[in-house]
Order: sequence, then C-alpha cells, then structure tokens
Amino acid sequence: MYQQTLRLGERKRGFHLITKEILEAFPELTEIKTGILQVFIQHTSASLTINENADPTVRKDFEMFFNKAVPENDPDYLHDDEGPDDMPAHLKAAMLGSAVSIPIQNGSLALGTWQGIYLCEHRNFGGRRSLVITAWGV
Amino acid sequence: MYQQTLRLGERKRGFHLITKEILEAFPELTEIKTGILQVFIQHTSASLTINENADPTVRKDFEMFFNKAVPENDPDYLHDDEGPDDMPAHLKAAMLGSAVSIPIQNGSLALGTWQGIYLCEHRNFGGRRSLVITAWGV
Amino acid sequence: MYQQTLRLGERKRGFHLITKEILEAFPELTEIKTGILQVFIQHTSASLTINENADPTVRKDFEMFFNKAVPENDPDYLHDDEGPDDMPAHLKAAMLGSAVSIPIQNGSLALGTWQGIYLCEHRNFGGRRSLVITAWGV
Repeated sequence: MYQQTLRLGERKRGFHLITKEILEAFPELTEIKTGILQVFIQHTSASLTINENADPTVRKDFEMFFNKAVPENDPDYLHDDEGPDDMPAHLKAAMLGSAVSIPIQNGSLALGTWQGIYLCEHRNFGGRRSLVITAWGV
Repeated sequence: MYQQTLRLGERKRGFHLITKEILEAFPELTEIKTGILQVFIQHTSASLTINENADPTVRKDFEMFFNKAVPENDPDYLHDDEGPDDMPAHLKAAMLGSAVSIPIQNGSLALGTWQGIYLCEHRNFGGRRSLVITAWGV
Repeated sequence: MYQQTLRLGERKRGFHLITKEILEAFPELTEIKTGILQVFIQHTSASLTINENADPTVRKDFEMFFNKAVPENDPDYLHDDEGPDDMPAHLKAAMLGSAVSIPIQNGSLALGTWQGIYLCEHRNFGGRRSLVITAWGV
C-alpha cells in the first residue's frame, strides 16, 4: 500500500488534464502488478473525473456545459458570501465527484486509449489544490 | 479488512452530514495507518457525496438546486407509480453516486478541512437507510 | 486480488442491466469473504452506475432525462466532428462516472434488494465496450 500527497500548481477555472503529473509523482505504481490507484481531492469546490485526453475542445465544452447546467447568480442560492462562483462550484464538485479509482495492470494504469484524469477547477481563483494518491495491490 | 453495516435513523428529504455517525460506528479505523474507507449505500433513491461541512445553507442550496435540475411531475416520466418524488430520486441518486471512498492516514480520514460526508435523502419518506462500511490498509 | 477484462457485446444507446453478466464473468468473487468489487469502463462516451434492477421504465426514464439535461446540437459545442451524440456522450459519462465499487460479503455482492449495475451507453453506435473488473479482500 503506497500513499502520498500531491500539491498541484494553481490552475485557471476549467478542466485540466493531470494524468502525467500524477504518474510522475507516483513512481511506486510500477511496483504493483495488479491493483488500484485512487486519486482523492481534499476540496469541495474542485473535483476529479475521467474523460477524453486528446481534443482540447472537449475540456472547453465541459466548462461551457457545466456553467449552463449550474448557473451563477441564481437568486435562490442562500450561500453566496464568497461570490457568484462559490455555490455553483460546490454543486459541480458533487456532480463530478471527489475521487477517481483506476485499475493497475502490470505497473501501469489500465486507462482506455482516450481516457485521461481531469482536475476540474470550479472556482475563479481556487489556489493550489491538494490530492491524496493511494495505490494498493500485489 | 474491516466491514460492517450501519443502519441510519430516518432523515428528512434533504442533505445531511453523517461524518461523525460513521466515525463513531467504525472504531476499527484507528487500526489502519495507510488505507481507504469506503461507504456504500444499499438504496437507489438516496445517495452519498462529499461536500462542505460548515455552513448549513450549502446543504439547503443542494436540495434547492437538485429539485430544479431534476423536476418532479415531468409528463415524460413512465415510472411514476410511487409518487412524484420517486423517479427524480433515482436520477439524483445516479448523479451523486452510491459510494464515497476516502483515504486513511494514521488512523484518521484524510478529509480536507471543509469536507464532510453527506447522506442525500431524495425521497419524502425514505425510511431508515443501510450503509455498508468497508476499510482496508496496513 | 483478482482482475480480468470483460468485453461486452454491443448495446443500443440507453441504460442496460449488466449485473448478471459481470457475476458470470467473475467466478473468483466467491473466494472473497470480505472485500470490494470494482468495475471500471475504459471509455469516455459510456459509463457505469447503480440503480433500480426491477421496473424497466426506470431505465427508459434515465435515457429520457439525460437527453433533456444534456442536449444534442447545442450551437456552443466546439467538439462536434463525430456527430451530435458525441459531446453529450462525454458529458453524460462524466456525470455518471467511469467506475462502480461494491462491497463483497461472504462471496456475494452486498447490493441492496433493488440495486443493479447499469451500463450507460451514450452513443448511437458505441460498439463493444471493455470493462476491467478487480476484486480484493480476504
């Protein structure tokens, strides 16, 4: 069982590929023949998901879609002290999730050809984000 | 590997913090230095997520938002025998998820400062809900 | 720790119960007294979730709802080369998730009475889908 914390550099609001950064921070992965890698984000206004790793317009469309689906400035929001991007950020984070878990096969992530790990930054100025990476197996 | 079932008391429709209840029901957590805790809900009209543990208006805004995003009484619903809150409950449960998995560090959950575990009760009268809590590690 | 790949037969766009197919492909499950089964999909335009295993109209309502929530032909989509069902498929996949994890108790999945595993096929012609099934425990 391997575990470590990874503190990401600050990202702009939007969806960002972080697969490479995770793999570089976690060389112990190659020690595991069969197992699971979990990445967990310790925040409630940013999230993690898995989606297309190629065409960058997919990530732009994610930002566009979630901004429509979870509008800012809904007058029904009660929690609005931290600005119009705050409550939508909490809701988007819950819709997308705080963790991804990926099988490990022969020391590599068993991602499909087109899959990558996204950091979903839902705040305008979210600052640096902390991940806990845990892997287990044989 | 530790596992147990936890039967929660009935909650009102809405979003409820249950971190403390889970920790109290699972003292074995302190036996694990490095690992994962998974909480799984055995229902299809209630769900689990992780979000802000402080300001209670966040949880009220969750209830408001998901009621708008997944409307009751859509005439296109085919599955409506159990009342207007039934089909929306299934959809909300799928959007939020049936499990949360959290890293364990030195016998404690590695939640961020502002993170707590939510029981998301999507039915008007959901009754008591059963969770299966599993933890593993070294 | 057991792991294997399962290649599903092609399904129509929509939501499909695959619990039985997973169990039949994974007889090693009965070797585990206490543990977890994870099912991971290696694609970005199909997803996995857990929901009602009985009334088939629930699965029809899932298809209807997600088609309304994530419309095709939004003129704001930038990623549209592969047809109108492509970008909505990526978004639906992220909302529902690429993996489900279910506790194992005494060699069986600890699903609730009404829970089943859904393959969510978001493309019109998605082809065969690959799953990686991993189980661990004692």
